[in-house]
Amino acid sequence: MHLTLDPNSQLPLYRQIRDQIRQLITGGALAPGDRLPPSRELARRLGVHRTTVANAYAELTAENWISGHVGRGTFVSKGIEPGPASVAKPARESTIAADGYLWTTLLDESHADDPLDVLIHDALTAAPDTISFITARPAEELFPVDDFRRCCNDVLKREGQRLLQLGPSDGYPSLKECLRDVLRRQGIAASARELLVVNGCQQGLDLVRRVFVHPGDTVLLENPCYPGAIQTFRTPGVKCIGVPVSEQGLNLEVLESLLGQNRARLLVLTPEFQNPTGTTLSLEGRRRVLELAARYQVPIVEDHIYGALRLRGRELPSLKALDRRGLVIHLNSFSKLCFPGLRVGWIVASAPVIERLRMAKQATDLHTGQLAQAALAEFCRRGLLDSLSERARTLYRTRLEAAEKALARHFPAEARWVRPEGGMSIWVSLPEGLDAGVLLFKARERKVLFTPGRFFYFQAVRPNTLRLGFAGVPPRQIEQGIAVLGGLLKAELRQRRREKPQPTEPARVALV
Amino acid sequence: MHLTLDPNSQLPLYRQIRDQIRQLITGGALAPGDRLPPSRELARRLGVHRTTVANAYAELTAENWISGHVGRGTFVSKGIEPGPASVAKPARESTIAADGYLWTTLLDESHADDPLDVLIHDALTAAPDTISFITARPAEELFPVDDFRRCCNDVLKREGQRLLQLGPSDGYPSLKECLRDVLRRQGIAASARELLVVNGCQQGLDLVRRVFVHPGDTVLLENPCYPGAIQTFRTPGVKCIGVPVSEQGLNLEVLESLLGQNRARLLVLTPEFQNPTGTTLSLEGRRRVLELAARYQVPIVEDHIYGALRLRGRELPSLKALDRRGLVIHLNSFSKLCFPGLRVGWIVASAPVIERLRMAKQATDLHTGQLAQAALAEFCRRGLLDSLSERARTLYRTRLEAAEKALARHFPAEARWVRPEGGMSIWVSLPEGLDAGVLLFKARERKVLFTPGRFFYFQAVRPNTLRLGFAGVPPRQIEQGIAVLGGLLKAELRQRRREKPQPTEPARVALV
Repeated sequence: MHLTLDPNSQLPLYRQIRDQIRQLITGGALAPGDRLPPSRELARRLGVHRTTVANAYAELTAENWISGHVGRGTFVSKGIEPGPASVAKPARESTIAADGYLWTTLLDESHADDPLDVLIHDALTAAPDTISFITARPAEELFPVDDFRRCCNDVLKREGQRLLQLGPSDGYPSLKECLRDVLRRQGIAASARELLVVNGCQQGLDLVRRVFVHPGDTVLLENPCYPGAIQTFRTPGVKCIGVPVSEQGLNLEVLESLLGQNRARLLVLTPEFQNPTGTTLSLEGRRRVLELAARYQVPIVEDHIYGALRLRGRELPSLKALDRRGLVIHLNSFSKLCFPGLRVGWIVASAPVIERLRMAKQATDLHTGQLAQAALAEFCRRGLLDSLSERARTLYRTRLEAAEKALARHFPAEARWVRPEGGMSIWVSLPEGLDAGVLLFKARERKVLFTPGRFFYFQAVRPNTLRLGFAGVPPRQIEQGIAVLGGLLKAELRQRRREKPQPTEPARVALV
Repeated sequence: MHLTLDPNSQLPLYRQIRDQIRQLITGGALAPGDRLPPSRELARRLGVHRTTVANAYAELTAENWISGHVGRGTFVSKGIEPGPASVAKPARESTIAADGYLWTTLLDESHADDPLDVLIHDALTAAPDTISFITARPAEELFPVDDFRRCCNDVLKREGQRLLQLGPSDGYPSLKECLRDVLRRQGIAASARELLVVNGCQQGLDLVRRVFVHPGDTVLLENPCYPGAIQTFRTPGVKCIGVPVSEQGLNLEVLESLLGQNRARLLVLTPEFQNPTGTTLSLEGRRRVLELAARYQVPIVEDHIYGALRLRGRELPSLKALDRRGLVIHLNSFSKLCFPGLRVGWIVASAPVIERLRMAKQATDLHTGQLAQAALAEFCRRGLLDSLSERARTLYRTRLEAAEKALARHFPAEARWVRPEGGMSIWVSLPEGLDAGVLLFKARERKVLFTPGRFFYFQAVRPNTLRLGFAGVPPRQIEQGIAVLGGLLKAELRQRRREKPQPTEPARVALV
């Protein structure tokens, strides 16, 4: 696959790549089923940033020219008719520069491009003067490191030998006790056999998939959705269907009709401060979801990871707290409140379900690290988690309000955003036709980062959406960063008004 | 499935269960493909210990009447002809007492019996006056808990905020630096891109499977083998073929012919102090394995977990240290030396391989807990790992020698055992016809526990083998425990000499 980029062109590099790949497909040089080089590899060859290629691929995916399969790679979509100019396909190049000859063939089919990965990389390597709204992780300045250090110290003094030795696969007993307490206060009565400690919600999702989802199964996921959930469930042979989540929240009518039309194996939901939209499912909505799940006999995986971060509005019971039939597998974690670096989360479900998940956990990594578990148990016992939660909510409330004020002040009138009742981010819809991916390129030059909405969609992508993670950003930077974004958007809108639409571009492609 | 046990019978309970299930199969009441109830469930129904049922199942598996599939359950083997007394099959009962009606059907196909699990459970819940040779885990009295506590304290003081925040998926940088040092001293030059931190060797195996092994693939495993590896690779659609490991070690002739006859995807080996046999592959053998892997283009997964525990004989380079072609994926962990409760291990392989494994790791649980990583890095930097290794080897050498002396003194002359050059256990072969599972029942009454060899075989089970884990047992208890086992064996042999063989039992079934 040979592409030629013109750095002096008005057309951004990612669109040059996109357009040329599209031509290769319509011209027949790339045939349905052909694999594209991994973005990292193509970026290296073209001498561009990996995000550039990832964005081109994301556009082509949104337009259904290509599709990515986690664990396999990115392929030209089936069912595309090559145009009349179809030519003989050139011999394919090897796409992986492996240092062992062997790996070239072995890895050939097992690679996937992960645009999220590029973003995470960006987030972790961002220059210190960058204002990053990318991640939804807790503000580390809140971490009571000294208190936690004393907890570590004391548990190591008291039970060091035991916790450093191999332990039970279902979790360290003292942490399980604390979690049962925490759950009780949330209206969930879980016995020890109904509770499994895992390495955070991501592992919770992964274990659920291992135990319940097999090739040929259908899973209903929110769309847009937490990218880690998409990555987990979209495996070969598994059909993922999106339940639309708009600014108004989960579409219950579509959910009902999807449940009626498909024999779904699982329904994965985030009723509380959904990631990325920040929407909350009403009490009535929760009851209806439970009824539907019971009627269609589909278990619900409830991702409750933002549950502790209600910043305004009335507390609502989780699906698990309302669950009378044992329909709900409830996932949660410490990670949005504190210490995501420790990787500790938990699953609540009926005992036979937990037993199967525990066996899968044991086969995966025996058990979760016990120093982290014991220290977190001590941290809870001393009331430090409660006081941290209090401080976190206060801080994030301030930041949410700062972000909303800045959005109102700086963003163009045509932009809309969800007013979340909690969580860590605001979901913004730009005026139709604007592309958040393109905005990111320009914003990056001004040292402001955020997550384009496309990373959260696995179908029906809305390229004009974006997520602003506010929790980790101080109010002054929130104001500054949003001012930069608003300025860029307003300039773009002015430009668009002056320009005529280019007739060569199909209407569905974002104008820049 | 209805079984009736007679507690007053001379026949042990597990044999009553085994025989009655056999009769149900030969009589046609259980047909090929029928699922047996999980051992836990059947044990509950019959009011016996779960191990009793697990042992009956293990015997039936060894005799090919039934077969267990991890993640699915235990089934009557295909290809068994019902006898002439074939009768109509009774309606099947539900085998899972779920508290949600839904789970009964959902979990129906996704359950597996795990006899190892029963053993682990036994090991963890054994009374304090029990002498347990079950596990191969480090002696916790060696753990320098206070030193480690100070390491935790200092890293939390120095870099607490950072290590408690979400981090890179390939590992905490300071630990990676230390590990590269450790590896250099082992003759392995690994760049940061060739090294991935994981949650112990079990996760290493699991990630390798995820990335490289797909339905339809063939994997070569040692037989007998670490049960966690069997559990990992024996998944639906994957063909596992055993490379025999005898008291003389890995059979290289069979390995060569298996490689010639099968298009193997991976070869999983433990050249150093193989678990469970304790055998070591010679330098010549290692070179030959590498040549074979290169010739047949099969990558090797080298499980090096016991590598630091050479107790006698000359140091040998690992396969990775000899690997010039990038053929080897090298797995290791801190867990056999210290602190398995922390769950920290690592993988060394060529950079593109590590990159794919890293992506799988990220999809599994984002990254390994960073407090454990940072504290272990500090522990290494202060030279504490080196001095611990020294003390561990001295202690285990004493225990190994005590065990060998006790075996020579107490075990019947017909028993044989491997003299390991390192590791944590001794592999014993009882006189042919004796069954280590039966010995375990009797030994348990005398408060001595060990692991029957059958848990390590996935084919061609030798029921007369057993593994004695000596590392965690003080010398006086080693002597005592082995004396008990030897006494039971000698009594059994005397009994056998007095008794005539029972004509109703096929010869391959162990006499008790």
